[in-house]
Amino acid sequence: MTTPVSVAPFIAPTFDAVLSDVLTACVNNKTKPLGSLGSLEGIAKQIGLIQRTTKPVLNQPAIMVFAGDHGVVAEGISAYPQDVTWQMVENFLAEGAAINVFARQNGLALHIVDAGVNHDFGVRDGLLDRKIAGSTRNFAKEPAMSAAQCEAAVQNGKDLMATLPGNVLGFGEMGIGNTTSAAALMHKLTGVAVADCVGAGTGLDAAGVRHKQKVIEGAVSLHATVSDPLAVLACFGGFEIATMVGAMLAAAERRMVLLIDGFIVTSALLVAAKLQPSILDYCIFAHRSDESGHAKMLTALGARPVLQLDLRLGEGTGAALVYPLVQAAVNFMTQMATFESAQVSEKS
Amino acid sequence: MTTPVSVAPFIAPTFDAVLSDVLTACVNNKTKPLGSLGSLEGIAKQIGLIQRTTKPVLNQPAIMVFAGDHGVVAEGISAYPQDVTWQMVENFLAEGAAINVFARQNGLALHIVDAGVNHDFGVRDGLLDRKIAGSTRNFAKEPAMSAAQCEAAVQNGKDLMATLPGNVLGFGEMGIGNTTSAAALMHKLTGVAVADCVGAGTGLDAAGVRHKQKVIEGAVSLHATVSDPLAVLACFGGFEIATMVGAMLAAAERRMVLLIDGFIVTSALLVAAKLQPSILDYCIFAHRSDESGHAKMLTALGARPVLQLDLRLGEGTGAALVYPLVQAAVNFMTQMATFESAQVSEKS
Repeated sequence: MTTPVSVAPFIAPTFDAVLSDVLTACVNNKTKPLGSLGSLEGIAKQIGLIQRTTKPVLNQPAIMVFAGDHGVVAEGISAYPQDVTWQMVENFLAEGAAINVFARQNGLALHIVDAGVNHDFGVRDGLLDRKIAGSTRNFAKEPAMSAAQCEAAVQNGKDLMATLPGNVLGFGEMGIGNTTSAAALMHKLTGVAVADCVGAGTGLDAAGVRHKQKVIEGAVSLHATVSDPLAVLACFGGFEIATMVGAMLAAAERRMVLLIDGFIVTSALLVAAKLQPSILDYCIFAHRSDESGHAKMLTALGARPVLQLDLRLGEGTGAALVYPLVQAAVNFMTQMATFESAQVSEKS
Repeated sequence: MTTPVSVAPFIAPTFDAVLSDVLTACVNNKTKPLGSLGSLEGIAKQIGLIQRTTKPVLNQPAIMVFAGDHGVVAEGISAYPQDVTWQMVENFLAEGAAINVFARQNGLALHIVDAGVNHDFGVRDGLLDRKIAGSTRNFAKEPAMSAAQCEAAVQNGKDLMATLPGNVLGFGEMGIGNTTSAAALMHKLTGVAVADCVGAGTGLDAAGVRHKQKVIEGAVSLHATVSDPLAVLACFGGFEIATMVGAMLAAAERRMVLLIDGFIVTSALLVAAKLQPSILDYCIFAHRSDESGHAKMLTALGARPVLQLDLRLGEGTGAALVYPLVQAAVNFMTQMATFESAQVSEKS
């Protein structure tokens, strides 16, 4: 059993009700029928509120991919061997993965963080070494990490934000076994039944999903008394999730726009939102993953995803793919003519 | 009552079953769990089939916006005055509309076609004059256009494709009153009840929608014997829709990728698909419009839209916004590493 982890309190950024009305008027004066840009209108207003301006600007956008390994893979809960975590980190560094392709296409810088991968990469260009350990422990038998490890990982995430340029960040992850961690976190933090939190991950068959569910149910029973959000995080891991929690909290504190990817990234946000509910004001939910628990996870957060493309890849691919729509929201707000400027007649 | 219009037969382009299997293998060998790029995988394969290659390339992408005025506005079926059609064309030429912003952002050339707008623009840079007449006639009283006008508009669309560079084209439209035309076309070509084809357009209230429904029901009754697809098109208009029909047919014949926008563009495709069902193989459905009939129209075509953003603006905005996702599909296909090339372990 871990002891509760402490984190420094964050200042809750708040939104300005007067500015909110001004932004609504700006959107409504554009040369288009009222409300006709749908969800882009909400995104434009949200970014205006985050940046406290009617002329928002997105600068130096980036994706940060957090990688980590999971002791719970010993229970046979993944369709792929653990080595795929480090192999995919190598693939990221070699520019060959889906996230490389999408980030490059959409003009997003890509940062890869080793939060705890079971491999010695050495010092490498483009890899941020924030390794806590080679892997979490197997949470089916014992807590995934110690309170000190969890605190260190969260702090690593916060520190990463201190030097990151730009005002918009997409979150991504890589870690064989991490849908098992995320499902356990989801169950503990939302109360949704384990069966509704568990999915096929990278491609389990029905028997594999049932086994994964049993492993999580056993672990939840073993760690039944853990309830504090950070203690839950330490208990079920992983290092990449804990590092993301810190990064998310610090990014919102810096009033950045947070692009939330799929199931694992959203599980990190569940933890962050327990600590700081107003973080949700800074989040754009990129995509509803095809991983079966994600829809219920989004519902628990009151979140409405922008895209529904049946992706279930992770890596931040949903966040990278949604970025042009986020740009479109900012661009219509700042570049479109008004009825007055274009001398277009208004509704009769 | 119009007489049936004739068009030259189009050669039905067909897809290659062998290539289809090769493309599936290409997609499955990329470093990602099987199927994990969701709908992007289907788009990648579709474009491979259209271009007959495993290395598709999108070049000189464009949006073409077809504008026209509608005699049926005399029945009071729109929330905006007819002048907004030409005023918005001016807004397009001045780069101030939503489609200008989104096309510019996503690197799409923008072509504006006057297919029959009730305004003398003179000779203008960036405006393609293919005006059939200043407006269609009021189809609540008489056919919207003559058979000759309809045939000329379709031919205009075909001719526009003959000189257009590039291999991907998004379709857009502008025309006060054209959701009324599109709803009538939808009813006649799909058999869906008029009540389920009619929506708020640019912003009618409930009473306005009921009135619009009555106008269409009256017109449908007046022209009850018209059933040939092109005669239906001539009867219910508009010029921008007829010009689009020709452009779509010729674009598919040239094996271009067609990006289908919202309710009105899809109504043109309903006509085109009656004439040439295999055109659907060339279409990517950008977006499910918030205009209430669009979902049923897509169902009638067996189409699955990529985006659901609650847009209801037209202008080709959905087509422009989906373009980066189409690029992403092509890019993952041509740029991602394979399991073998990246030395990543496969599923165990």
